[in-house]
Amino acid sequence: MTDTEKPKRHIDLLAPEQERLRSARPGDRLVRLRRPKIAGVRRLEDGVYEVISDTPRGGAVSQALYRLRRTLLGAPIRSEHEAHERLSKKIGLPAFGSDNISSSAYASEELMRVLLLAGVGALSLTLPLTVAVVVLAAIVVTSYQQTIRAYPKGGGSYVVSSDNLGTVPGLIAGASILVDYILTVAVSASAGVAAMTSAFPALYDERALIAVGAVALIAWMNLRGIRESGAIFAAPVYLYVVFLFGLIAYGVYRYVMEGQPPAYVPLPMDEAHAHHVGSQALTAFLILRAFASGAVGLTGTEAIADGVGAFKAPEARNARVTLIMMAAIFGTIFIGVSFLASWIGIVPDPREIETVNSQLTRALIGTGWLYYTIQFTTALLLILAANTGFADFPRLASFMSRDKFLPTHFASRGGRLAFSNGIIVLAVVASILIIIFQGSVTALIPLYTVGVFVAFTLSQSGLVVRWWRLREPGWQWRMSINAVGATVTAVVAIVVGVTKFALGAWVVLVLLPFLVVLLLGIRRHYHDVADQVTVDPNERDEHPDTVARAFAHYLLIPVKELDRTALRAISYARSLTGQVTQGGTQGGAQGGGATAQSSHVVIQAVHVTDDADTAHALQEKWERYNPGVELVVVESPYRAFVGPLLRYIDAVERRHSERTAVVTVLVPEFIPAHWWENFLHTHTALQLKGALLFRPRVAVTSVPYHLEA
Amino acid sequence: MTDTEKPKRHIDLLAPEQERLRSARPGDRLVRLRRPKIAGVRRLEDGVYEVISDTPRGGAVSQALYRLRRTLLGAPIRSEHEAHERLSKKIGLPAFGSDNISSSAYASEELMRVLLLAGVGALSLTLPLTVAVVVLAAIVVTSYQQTIRAYPKGGGSYVVSSDNLGTVPGLIAGASILVDYILTVAVSASAGVAAMTSAFPALYDERALIAVGAVALIAWMNLRGIRESGAIFAAPVYLYVVFLFGLIAYGVYRYVMEGQPPAYVPLPMDEAHAHHVGSQALTAFLILRAFASGAVGLTGTEAIADGVGAFKAPEARNARVTLIMMAAIFGTIFIGVSFLASWIGIVPDPREIETVNSQLTRALIGTGWLYYTIQFTTALLLILAANTGFADFPRLASFMSRDKFLPTHFASRGGRLAFSNGIIVLAVVASILIIIFQGSVTALIPLYTVGVFVAFTLSQSGLVVRWWRLREPGWQWRMSINAVGATVTAVVAIVVGVTKFALGAWVVLVLLPFLVVLLLGIRRHYHDVADQVTVDPNERDEHPDTVARAFAHYLLIPVKELDRTALRAISYARSLTGQVTQGGTQGGAQGGGATAQSSHVVIQAVHVTDDADTAHALQEKWERYNPGVELVVVESPYRAFVGPLLRYIDAVERRHSERTAVVTVLVPEFIPAHWWENFLHTHTALQLKGALLFRPRVAVTSVPYHLEA
Repeated sequence: MTDTEKPKRHIDLLAPEQERLRSARPGDRLVRLRRPKIAGVRRLEDGVYEVISDTPRGGAVSQALYRLRRTLLGAPIRSEHEAHERLSKKIGLPAFGSDNISSSAYASEELMRVLLLAGVGALSLTLPLTVAVVVLAAIVVTSYQQTIRAYPKGGGSYVVSSDNLGTVPGLIAGASILVDYILTVAVSASAGVAAMTSAFPALYDERALIAVGAVALIAWMNLRGIRESGAIFAAPVYLYVVFLFGLIAYGVYRYVMEGQPPAYVPLPMDEAHAHHVGSQALTAFLILRAFASGAVGLTGTEAIADGVGAFKAPEARNARVTLIMMAAIFGTIFIGVSFLASWIGIVPDPREIETVNSQLTRALIGTGWLYYTIQFTTALLLILAANTGFADFPRLASFMSRDKFLPTHFASRGGRLAFSNGIIVLAVVASILIIIFQGSVTALIPLYTVGVFVAFTLSQSGLVVRWWRLREPGWQWRMSINAVGATVTAVVAIVVGVTKFALGAWVVLVLLPFLVVLLLGIRRHYHDVADQVTVDPNERDEHPDTVARAFAHYLLIPVKELDRTALRAISYARSLTGQVTQGGTQGGAQGGGATAQSSHVVIQAVHVTDDADTAHALQEKWERYNPGVELVVVESPYRAFVGPLLRYIDAVERRHSERTAVVTVLVPEFIPAHWWENFLHTHTALQLKGALLFRPRVAVTSVPYHLEA
Repeated sequence: MTDTEKPKRHIDLLAPEQERLRSARPGDRLVRLRRPKIAGVRRLEDGVYEVISDTPRGGAVSQALYRLRRTLLGAPIRSEHEAHERLSKKIGLPAFGSDNISSSAYASEELMRVLLLAGVGALSLTLPLTVAVVVLAAIVVTSYQQTIRAYPKGGGSYVVSSDNLGTVPGLIAGASILVDYILTVAVSASAGVAAMTSAFPALYDERALIAVGAVALIAWMNLRGIRESGAIFAAPVYLYVVFLFGLIAYGVYRYVMEGQPPAYVPLPMDEAHAHHVGSQALTAFLILRAFASGAVGLTGTEAIADGVGAFKAPEARNARVTLIMMAAIFGTIFIGVSFLASWIGIVPDPREIETVNSQLTRALIGTGWLYYTIQFTTALLLILAANTGFADFPRLASFMSRDKFLPTHFASRGGRLAFSNGIIVLAVVASILIIIFQGSVTALIPLYTVGVFVAFTLSQSGLVVRWWRLREPGWQWRMSINAVGATVTAVVAIVVGVTKFALGAWVVLVLLPFLVVLLLGIRRHYHDVADQVTVDPNERDEHPDTVARAFAHYLLIPVKELDRTALRAISYARSLTGQVTQGGTQGGAQGGGATAQSSHVVIQAVHVTDDADTAHALQEKWERYNPGVELVVVESPYRAFVGPLLRYIDAVERRHSERTAVVTVLVPEFIPAHWWENFLHTHTALQLKGALLFRPRVAVTSVPYHLEA
């Protein structure tokens, strides 16, 4: 642990260092080596170096790619600066809360739309059901307060369920939430674009493309790092909150002062839609279904608990305060809208052209510039709700990847400390969903809620088990809170599952078991690999001292001609294996002279040909020049190259019985000066490598030979 | 030269050998090695092996691919059996002559169509002009008789012009003929399909597709070898010859016996076309243009001279006889058709719906089954004319490739001794032309003749120069023949170029210089490469005895963990470089103990990380286990892997001044048991190889680690 504590000078000298490299002379190498900053590498102690530059050293192309990347994503950030990239409450609220807060823009309407099936009179249940949903949200939020306290490093349903209920419940919760975040992105982008296209119908045909573009934009911002994207996307969230609070305050003021609701003309209703209204009886099932529809507002509640690690210290405290702020904002707007809509007597537009929030705004303040500003801000917020998916999905995927349930790619942070692979995968999958569903919110939304409530239930139940197990002071009331939460969310999960099953919830319910099996399979693979490669430090069977002595090496060098490429490869092989002539004799008489030949390394040049004449000529040339290694001719009567060489390798491998024959094929590789010159060379080296890739105990070495222009 | 003379037992034991391999026991390896046929390799003498099997030894996929290939292309043929694959005169005539013979199906019509522009009366010039074209053909054929005598290994215009006139004339001739063969394929397939679709108009919309299909079919047959494709495609050629000879004999019989031509009703002529007839005066230019149009019948005359090498011994004699047979057949049919058409008074159909040959057949024998059989045979022959292109283009490309003007790929023979790459390239380019021109013969044909006559002229002139230079007995009359040939073909080239310039000949005339520059550029590249890699056998600067002692080797092994993959790579590196502990001591005390460390080979395990804690833990583990090589930690504060490793390689390379540092990066490569498991591993090995490919003096060795299922 001493390494982390040791103070490190952070020398950010990229530009001046480049300058110095450019002015370097070949002569001053040794002098420059003493200097610590040479070539962007600094020696910290014996055997420990630090790379202090991230600029590539390569040619024009890689330099240009590097500059492009830097322009798009910004300068890379050092790992130890991770704490600087954390979020304050001010930025954490919009980053993780935009999903939840944005649902206040449509939760009232979703609820009212179901009630309307039992007639306009049933809308009187809007406010009571809204209060019920907000109470549910309060219960869930209270539970999450405890979750964050218990899991200060980030405790979404996945972590809590895995920890307390076991692997499979944890995976069910994790898979549900991952699916939910993907849907968050697809639904938010689609909903936001739908709001835009209702203002500009000309864009309607391109809505899927615009939604994908919005997803790409948000993904790009997130690749620049969570702090930067959080800051950029904060404004619309706060703007929405200010506008809606103002609107509700104004509405309540008029309710108190005037008593009389403003004049409201319900939207025209055509035949096609009118007969839906009042078509059903106000059964308990319908009321439950309305409640379930309103409960869509709870999606995104999980986000902050998952993202605790992204907050500035003290992480847990900041996260908990942010969570309460988020819930308060959501609850206020939700109840405010439902209350005012009920007071004014607003009826949802059965044609689904104008939203309830729009009608409410219009009824209260008319259709002036403020109305349009509020509508536009709402549309922007709906798109930005996707940002919560981007803030949390990669983080959750990294947790699951660290536990080996997802590919390791998800656990690595990019140049800007973002979980880049998770961001890219999320953007791609959500875009595919948008394209498949052609940006239709109605088609996507039924898939949306059920997974969240399954995860809530598991997470609450996990905490119940935890409190019971630990019996810390005050465990009784903690357990009671979570038990209530678990029960309520379980009921909602069942209600949502049943009421929305046919509309699409079945997709998620069918998908989840598949995902769980897949995740388990991935972990099994990693465990299998680990079992195979892990070394017991007390066993010496695999120790190089033991193993190295059992190897007999064959270095095979495929040659076409006795040319520089072949000689380069032979020199490489001979010097590497210590088969160099001793002393200064240069003659190199037939038979190798004073070559220090190790008996367990055999170097052979292999000439594969169908032409015995040229082979014979090469043999004679070889004997005269004597490059110090044996030439083997493999006649290939069918003119193939790779196949016969493989056959010869077979024969070599079978020659040994005491030692393990290890064949290394040394491929002299032609690197032309220009890419198009590649068309002029047969890429036997590449073919050979492809063919040898799947053979155990055959290594392939590429010895590059760079052609000049 | 002794190797070729040595008699070789040809053991074709593929199937039984497979059987034997399957029943092998691990124990009998050494015994089996003494047997010659083990693993498909046979030892011929010291250091010379022969691969006697072409079956792959790999997994199910490569076995299946091999079987599929064998089914499609047939069993591979040994190089020394090449002579058995040669063509007799009987098969050589249709293989190389189909292009020339097929032009008798449209040469009369092409000629008459131009004359018709000066009115029906001008058609009386048909027979004289036909005779003139046939005389021209006779001159060209006589010249080619001499060419074949002078170049018995195959002497198309390319070889003759290069040899006698110089590189650039040779390349002009070669490029012209290559372009011509491509056009032969495109035009023949299009013309044949046009004949088919005039019988079955329903197929008209798919004509390009059908033509491409025909090209693919002919290409496939040619990939099976020239002898097999020649035999398969011979029947329609002979059938056409028999039918046309019979038809002409019958016509001449009626001319002699009846005197009176059969009743002939000219085809109806609509307004749109009628005004073309007689629209021009019968100028000398028009007559020349008609002659040039008839001269299209000379395309394909070159084919046999190019393909001499494909004939059975005596090659030259067989080729010359075949050439005379071909010319006789072409001349007879051409004159016969022109004569009978003039006698009957046939007028070409201005709507281009019915051909002159069809009208002639109809006039003589009516429209019974025989008429349809002849039409169908003609259509088939027109398609098969493409086969001449496939017989010759790959062969000419192989000549040019051997002279380094074309990529080396064209010089290698496939499993069936065909120049497979040439066949594939020809098929692809011709198909592209067909698709671009939508299978229209009219659009393609003006490009067709000019190149041929340019090549003829160059080839004849080359021979004139040759006879003048050599002054062999009888050189005067040989030279005269070729001088006449050169003059006449030059005139025709000019006539064709001028009369058809605007119709499309300009494309070829513009293309040729470009092609010549390209071909010269290709040779320059190969020469540059040869200059760079060729070794002077008397110079010892590049001799491994000298060079090997100047290398200082660094073997870097990137490691993530001290696991089996790392240990395997370390064992490999240590045993290869002779760094094994002496004697039986296994302890491996700190510092390496009795390791025989070469001072010029340094092995280092390199751990790239951004996490100092895990690096420290690895260092401690490393010290305890002591695998015998140093562990270097490279801290990568930006979390990249490849970049920092490259930086470290820089630092290593700069450490030396006396010796040349050669860095070998030893990449332990994970090979999962199933392909899909690749998604679960980060392919840093692959990334690393990509990044190192372009660095001189850095070799990359893949040490495979195969995972079990």
